This record gives sequence, structure tokens and C-alpha cells, in this order.
Amino acid sequence: MTRQHRIPVTVVGLGSMGSALAAAFLTAGHRTTVWNRTASKAAPLVAQGAVHAPTAEEAVGASPLTVACLTTYEDTLAALAPAAAALRGRALVTLNSGAPSGARAMTAWAREHGVRHLDGAVKNVPSAVGAEDTLLYYGGDRAVFDEFAPVLRVLGGDTVHLGDDPDLAALYEMAVGGTLLPALVGFFQGAAAVQARGLTAESLVRYSEKWFEMIISLLPVFAREIDRGEYGDPASSVNLFLAGAAHDAELGEEAGLDIAWHRPLHELLERAVAAGYGEHSVSALTEVLKKPSPAA
Amino acid sequence: MTRQHRIPVTVVGLGSMGSALAAAFLTAGHRTTVWNRTASKAAPLVAQGAVHAPTAEEAVGASPLTVACLTTYEDTLAALAPAAAALRGRALVTLNSGAPSGARAMTAWAREHGVRHLDGAVKNVPSAVGAEDTLLYYGGDRAVFDEFAPVLRVLGGDTVHLGDDPDLAALYEMAVGGTLLPALVGFFQGAAAVQARGLTAESLVRYSEKWFEMIISLLPVFAREIDRGEYGDPASSVNLFLAGAAHDAELGEEAGLDIAWHRPLHELLERAVAAGYGEHSVSALTEVLKKPSPAA
Ligand SMILES: NC(=O)c1ccc[n+]([C@@H]2O[C@H](COP(=O)([O-])OP(=O)(O)OC[C@H]3O[C@@H](n4cnc5c(N)ncnc54)[C@H](OP(=O)(O)O)[C@@H]3O)[C@@H](O)[C@H]2O)c1
Ligand SMILES: NC(=O)c1ccc[n+]([C@@H]2O[C@H](COP(=O)([O-])OP(=O)(O)OC[C@H]3O[C@@H](n4cnc5c(N)ncnc54)[C@H](OP(=O)(O)O)[C@@H]3O)[C@@H](O)[C@H]2O)c1
Repeated sequence: MTRQHRIPVTVVGLGSMGSALAAAFLTAGHRTTVWNRTASKAAPLVAQGAVHAPTAEEAVGASPLTVACLTTYEDTLAALAPAAAALRGRALVTLNSGAPSGARAMTAWAREHGVRHLDGAVKNVPSAVGAEDTLLYYGGDRAVFDEFAPVLRVLGGDTVHLGDDPDLAALYEMAVGGTLLPALVGFFQGAAAVQARGLTAESLVRYSEKWFEMIISLLPVFAREIDRGEYGDPASSVNLFLAGAAHDAELGEEAGLDIAWHRPLHELLERAVAAGYGEHSVSALTEVLKKPSPAA
Repeated sequence: MTRQHRIPVTVVGLGSMGSALAAAFLTAGHRTTVWNRTASKAAPLVAQGAVHAPTAEEAVGASPLTVACLTTYEDTLAALAPAAAALRGRALVTLNSGAPSGARAMTAWAREHGVRHLDGAVKNVPSAVGAEDTLLYYGGDRAVFDEFAPVLRVLGGDTVHLGDDPDLAALYEMAVGGTLLPALVGFFQGAAAVQARGLTAESLVRYSEKWFEMIISLLPVFAREIDRGEYGDPASSVNLFLAGAAHDAELGEEAGLDIAWHRPLHELLERAVAAGYGEHSVSALTEVLKKPSPAA
């Protein structure tokens, strides 16, 4: 262990995630100063050895590195505004969710006040913080990342710098996270369909798990097609998906389900066919998504 | 090995999947009779020891069990119609894709001709046929399944009887498979978003993989909520998803993407809020899907 591993660290924001971050630093032996708007949330951490600062300003002044984990960028800006002078010359790592524009606004504020900023995201739940395979990725000032990577790795062994743009973590969050809601709605619809037959949603789970594993195995293939822009040697064609789409109406009718949410997905397939991609890989939908919507 | 393991088997339909099924039976030491509309496709199997029957009728007459793997139920009915009398009293397992109504029509035809029918699905690619963890599930006549399960297990070690209804495999195919297109469109959109920044789709893959693993880990939780109809103790609330939805427009605008396909997903969230589910689990969308669409 180098000295670097044991630098003092400040954590601002002690919600579910911020508390987990602070606890990980304490476990790793860092002198950890904490601050939260609602002061009572600091108590369990103080019991574990944390130093409770009365103001955000005093908190950030206690360490060369501050990790902030509040709800939004706006909240983070509001909470740190009184601490701007104290942050000058120090490193600030923000770990909240938000849009790329929020990350850019955060970095602009940091520049204005001479604060060295890195924006990141915890790709996991609070209970996973500190584990070897827990992923956190960061975008922004590479020098800050290089200097503090050994400390940041305390939060998760899989710690990555995506690039110098300060909004890259937020961008990847959105690019990666965009599968969640549609995939879940697909699962909920399947659950409703089997329930309509007196079967349990639970009976679907093991098959859905295998199915998602199959989807995972397809991603590198599709990514290669998309990066090359070559869709001509398909494992699954647009037409194959369009043929399957025809069955959806039956599922909806038999189970009495609202399947209106399929319509725009089918329209994307139809637009892909119209663009000459019918016998090409379904990943050619990427090209269709890049075109403005005909409705727009 | 019991005698049952080595009964003669007939495979009708020698496309990519049917050929893999026949090859697995041959490898396991079954006397395997094959038939295909386009006769030339039998040649590689004959080289492996298969018997090539000149007609479907002679093919099914050679074995107590016929496995049919054609494109659709309609194709299967068309191909087997001339063999109906020869199938009487024998077992027929259909392994094509199709809607539940197609499976029911197939079973009705089988009943009419005194054929014992089981309908199933191969939940994997042809190259996985025969592997220990390859999943095939079946619905229909339990006696047929019990009698031939040791033989069917040659096609995949994970062989399951879902229940006595002949359309259950087709129903589960649709219920499980409904996540594929929406999840892929989400991934393609993410790929387009990072490409708009000069980054590769490939750079997303490892994060998307972790993300899908996270989704997999959520399924049992959501299934329990859905089966109990209790959504009040959420890991992720409807309102949380609705807040994220607000960022989608920004992603679309910055990357110049068509995100019109999100609209009905957001509408489902809004309807869930209107139904009082805002602070409930996002799995409460299942209840919204069970209501007719307001547009309908
Ligand atoms: N929990 C997870 O599973 C998870 C996973 C990955 C990422 N994240 C992200 O991590 C961030 C924090 O999440 P969380 O789960 O820890 O949220 P949380 O439990 O709701 O905590 C929110 C924190 O932000 C503080 N805060 C909010 N607005 C503030 C303001 N205007 N001024 C000062 N403090 C303010 C709160 O202070 P008070 O205590 O005074 O209200 C609290 O410490 C979010 O962006 C979330 O998306 C969470
Ligand atoms: N391949 C996969 O990865 C996979 C995975 C899971 C499930 N499945 C399902 O398995 C089934 C077969 O798929 P496949 O990949 O083997 O398809 P395929 O390679 O296109 O083969 C289709 C087979 O059906 C026959 N056929 C079609 N219409 C016919 C008709 N009217 N009369 C007689 N024979 C007819 C074809 O005969 P000809 O040779 O004479 O054209 C050929 O043997 C499909 O329902 C598919 O969805 C496939």
C-alpha cells in the first residue's frame, strides 16, 4: 500500500449510495470526513469512525478529494456552492445520475472555481460498493483519475476512465441504461400473458434468464455489424422480426393485453424494410434510429 | 441405458434445426429415419448413418416417434397431411416456432387422426442441440412426454414439461421472447448515441452485458411482486423511471436520434401514476398492461 491509498477523503451526500461510499472508505482505512444536509444521517458513519463536518465547506476543506453523491447535478451544485472557495485546487468526483448536459454544467462550474472535476457513475447497488467486480466509470480530467484511481478503486475493483470528455459517464449511463425500461415492459407483458392462463410470473423467470443470457451473447455480434455499417450477413434478419411481430396481436388479444407499445417498434422494422434492410441484420435498425422520425 | 434410449426415431424437416436434431439422434445411437421436401438436404445425414425415406408417410412409419421441425405449423400440417394414416397411434413432437393458436390447431389435427401430439420449442441455436444445458420445453400430452423424455433429452439436457395444454410451449415462447426486440432497439439506440460522439458500439458491449446481468438479477424480485399483486415496497418506483424518461429527449436531440418509440413506454408510466402506482414498484406496469389501451 502506497501513501496514496490512505489519503483523507470527504463524502458529501449520505443517502443510500453516499453512505455506502463513505463506509467503503472507512473500511479501507481512509480518514473519512462526511457531510449531509440532514445531519442525522451521519450518525452510523461516525459510529464507524467518520468525522462529521458541520458544513459542506469544512467537509471539503478536510481532504484533497471530495466524492459527492446527491440526487442530481442541480442538488450537487446547490449543496457545494457555499464550499466553492474551499474546493479550489482540490479534486471533486461527482457520482450522481443525470443527463450529459448536467455533467457539462458541473464541469463548467468546477472550472470557474478552479476545482478539478471528474464525473462518474456507480453501475451497481449500494450493497455492491467495495466489491472486486463492482463497476464505476468516469469521464473528465485524466490527471485527476490517474492521481486518485487507487483511492477510487476502494469503491469498486472495476474502475474505468472512459475518456476526457466530462459527460462520458452520463452519456454511457443513458446509452447503456436505455435497454432497461423496454426490456422490463417486455417481461411484464409476458408475466401478464401467463397469468391470463392461470400460471405464475415466477414460472417465466428461469426461461427469461436464459433468454437474456442469449441476448447478451448477441451483443458483440451486433456491435461489430454496427461499427462496420455492414448488415448483409445476418444471424437474424429484419424480415424475421417482422414475421414474429405479426404474432403479437394474437398474444394481446388472447390475454386481453394492451400491446399498443409494440406499434413504434414494428414501424421501425417497416422503415428498415422500406430502406432496403429487409434481408439484412436486425442491427440495421441502428441506421433507422439515426434518421429523423417521419412524424417529427 | 434402457431400451427406451435406443428406439428408432424419425425426423421430418431437415433445415438448420431439423438437421441438428437428426444429427444428435444419430450421435446418441438411435436408428434415425429422415425426410425433407428438398431431398438433397438428407445427404449429410445419410453419410452419418441416417435412413432416407422417399416419402413423409414412409418416414413416420419407420419409428414410434416422429420429430417435425419445419418453418411453421401450416408447413408442418401440409407436409404431414399425406402421412396422417401412417402416424395413427404414434407420437409426434413438433418443434417449430409459431403462435399458441397454431399449436392448438396442430393438436386438433393430431386428435382427429389418432396421433399422440406434444408441442415443444428449442430455446437455442442448432449448434447447441445435444448439449447438457440446452433447454427444450414442451406442452401437451403428459403420457407422451413421460414415455419419450429419455429420448427427447438427447436433444438437450434441460428438457421440461410445462403442462398439459398443447399450446404452452408456444405461449412461453411469446411470453419470454417479447423482451428481445425492445431490448435490442434499446441497445441499438445506445450504439447510435455513442457513435454520434465518435465512439464505437463495441465500447458499449461490456457495460451493456453487466447491465443485462443486473436486469436478470431483478426478474425474481419483480415476478414475486407480480404474483402477489403487491407493488408497495419498490426497489425502483414508477416515478423513478418517469424521472429518467425526461432525459430521453435530451439524448435524442444531442445525438440526432429518433426516439419516438419511447412515447408509449412513457405513456404506460404515466397511466401507472394515474392509477396510483407512482411510488409503487415499476412492476406495477403489469397491471396497466392488463387494461385495454385508452386509444383502443
Ligand atoms: N441507490 C442506488 O441504488 C443507486 C445506484 C446507482 C446510482 N445512484 C445514484 O446516486 C445518487 C444518490 O442516490 P441515493 O440512492 O443515495 O439517493 P438518496 O438515498 O435519495 O439520497 C439523496 C442524497 O442527496 C441529498 N440531497 C438531495 N438534494 C439535496 C440538496 N438540494 N442539497 C443537499 N443535499 C441534497 C440528500 O440529502 P438529505 O438526506 O438531506 O435529503 C441525500 O443525502 C443518485 O443520483 C442516484 O441516481 C443510486
Ligand atoms: N435455426 C434456429 O436458430 C432456430 C432456433 C430455434 C427455433 N427454430 C425454429 O425451428 C424451425 C425450423 O427452423 P430452421 O432454422 O431449421 O429453418 P430452415 O433452415 O429455413 O428450414 C425450414 C425447413 O422447413 C421445411 N419446410 C418449410 N415449408 C415446408 C412445406 N410447406 N413443406 C415441406 N417442408 C417445408 C424446409 O424444407 P425445404 O428444405 O424443402 O425448404 C426445411 O426443411 C422454425 O420454426 C424456427 O423458428 C430455429
